[in-house]
Amino acid sequence: MHTYTIPLVPGPTAVRPEVLAAYQVNYGSADLEPEYPLLYSETEILLHNLLGTGNRIAILSGEGMVALWGALKSTLCPGDRVVAVATGFFGFGIADMARAIGAHVDTVDFGFDEAATDLDRVADAIRRVRPKMVTLVHCETPSGIINPAAEVGALVREYDVPLYYVDVVSSLGGMALETDAWGIDLCLGATQKALSSLPDLGIVAVSDRAWDIIEAVNYQGYDALLPFRAPPAVGGFPYTPNWHALAALYTSCSLLLAEGLTAVYARHEAIARRWRESLEALGLTLFPRDPATNAPTVTAVKLPETVSWPDLDAALRRRGMVVGGSYGPLAGQVFRVGHMGAQASEALWHEGIRTLSAALRELGLPVNEVTP
Amino acid sequence: MHTYTIPLVPGPTAVRPEVLAAYQVNYGSADLEPEYPLLYSETEILLHNLLGTGNRIAILSGEGMVALWGALKSTLCPGDRVVAVATGFFGFGIADMARAIGAHVDTVDFGFDEAATDLDRVADAIRRVRPKMVTLVHCETPSGIINPAAEVGALVREYDVPLYYVDVVSSLGGMALETDAWGIDLCLGATQKALSSLPDLGIVAVSDRAWDIIEAVNYQGYDALLPFRAPPAVGGFPYTPNWHALAALYTSCSLLLAEGLTAVYARHEAIARRWRESLEALGLTLFPRDPATNAPTVTAVKLPETVSWPDLDAALRRRGMVVGGSYGPLAGQVFRVGHMGAQASEALWHEGIRTLSAALRELGLPVNEVTP
Repeated sequence: MHTYTIPLVPGPTAVRPEVLAAYQVNYGSADLEPEYPLLYSETEILLHNLLGTGNRIAILSGEGMVALWGALKSTLCPGDRVVAVATGFFGFGIADMARAIGAHVDTVDFGFDEAATDLDRVADAIRRVRPKMVTLVHCETPSGIINPAAEVGALVREYDVPLYYVDVVSSLGGMALETDAWGIDLCLGATQKALSSLPDLGIVAVSDRAWDIIEAVNYQGYDALLPFRAPPAVGGFPYTPNWHALAALYTSCSLLLAEGLTAVYARHEAIARRWRESLEALGLTLFPRDPATNAPTVTAVKLPETVSWPDLDAALRRRGMVVGGSYGPLAGQVFRVGHMGAQASEALWHEGIRTLSAALRELGLPVNEVTP
Repeated sequence: MHTYTIPLVPGPTAVRPEVLAAYQVNYGSADLEPEYPLLYSETEILLHNLLGTGNRIAILSGEGMVALWGALKSTLCPGDRVVAVATGFFGFGIADMARAIGAHVDTVDFGFDEAATDLDRVADAIRRVRPKMVTLVHCETPSGIINPAAEVGALVREYDVPLYYVDVVSSLGGMALETDAWGIDLCLGATQKALSSLPDLGIVAVSDRAWDIIEAVNYQGYDALLPFRAPPAVGGFPYTPNWHALAALYTSCSLLLAEGLTAVYARHEAIARRWRESLEALGLTLFPRDPATNAPTVTAVKLPETVSWPDLDAALRRRGMVVGGSYGPLAGQVFRVGHMGAQASEALWHEGIRTLSAALRELGLPVNEVTP
């Protein structure tokens, strides 16, 4: 297997040794030992800090999509109306998922290079549709765009929409989140982005009004949120929990809190700014239409016309560096640097910019001289 | 955290260092690297050996229940008829899960201490109901009973039932399985029992006729099997796969194949026999009504009338030993020794019997002298 010394994929991110160490222990049975629900409660408290919430948090075994699906299925019934605010691959994807459940979905389509900053369009849709739920992706990983979660949340409350569903998979741990202040009922995260753990847990912070709807819907399934309403208890989980994964998540969160969340977010902001400035200095063009909506965790860059994605990917890999391409309509047009979690590092930025310059020159693109 | 030097819980089982080592690597992105689908294919081949099948295998991220739910939801529609052959907690549980999907379920109820050996009762139900699916749990972990999966499979074929759904979570890796010869369409396993890995992957071997039904049902969700019909390919998975977990599963299966499956199964059979003989020699009574239906992976024992489960559990734990209680109607009446996977060990049997004798004597039970 190849491993890359300059890992800059926007998730799964490089995992710190302290986090991997959590997988080296032979734990007991989470169904039997009181230490497990205790660890769950302690992890919940750490996540309260990271998510800016006092809400109960469901930690599900599986990749982040288990949280996205579980929160939709646990709250929506066929025929329910949804307004999906969509600015990228996942925003449109969540609309499709809600449709698969039988919901009537109106998509507020901002295209792929724009954030949902035109709030009038969102308000119009809410007034027209009177939805049960508004959905938003806070950070669109495939396009590197941050959406105004607080402002959309204000509209959700103004129009008494029962549920506000926000995907923070790619922002959680990389920037300040205010789940409660922003009025988020279902705040959805995962472990393998800025938390720099493995892709093995989904995280959902659930508001009290969402719990009441979840109780009424009474959805049954692997991804059901309902069993997580009760406080964590021995034998109270709907399946054998993954003790190793929870211990790793606890470790990841502890490392961030030990660094200090203000410092963590400043580190992400500083590294992101350096990446953006250096990429533009090289002569490249960032993808988001409005620079103010650039994400602090991932930067999307337009591929120069003369360079193909497979060639750039191969040239970078030969030098030990790996970045992300993109998905859907952006495939082959955009590449992405993931500078989140353990990858929000000055050293990786140095090496990354040097390596990218060399690769682009090899491919015949006369990039400017940049000294990171 | 307490760790126990005599781990005898019937899952999650003790994990070998070689398997834990798979979690110490910083892998690349499974969405980008050709090594990942290759590892998936290679793991599929190892599982073909363990499951006795040539069928495509879906490996889902999550605990074993993700496989159990996913296979039901991917094949059943509201109104479909199901015959659930139930001899324990999970057999009845699967019937409830199918009901939650809206299926009409007839349960062939064998109680909790008997295997489904009275095949006439199963045949009668199939003739009467003409179901779309027959469900069976091969090894009922909470009662230590093995069901006749081959014989029920013969009935399924005789009466042209479209789908045969068999939970092998607790037998996979501990005894010979013949998915294809037994006519199993949905063979459902997990990693944390006799495979002695973490509870992070669900395994479903899917027959061609099941794939066709899955295609027609077109179920969408986190646990959907449909995306796994296509051969594993870069970017072809429905969510970010857990590379570490797959590498650990590959390692677990490799260790079993290196030992030789015949030897592995003989080891389980020999250790199980020793446990049963020693427990009876102590003066205890095994739970299954017919000794011929005892599982080679887990032994269920009746709690003596004068001993409470919390007292026995505490007395064992003080001595570094941990076993399982039971669930549902058997809670407090039965305890269980998990001697599967890494725990199917002569040394653990020695220590386990010595420790159990001492604990029972401490609790005032005059057990016989047994020298393991």
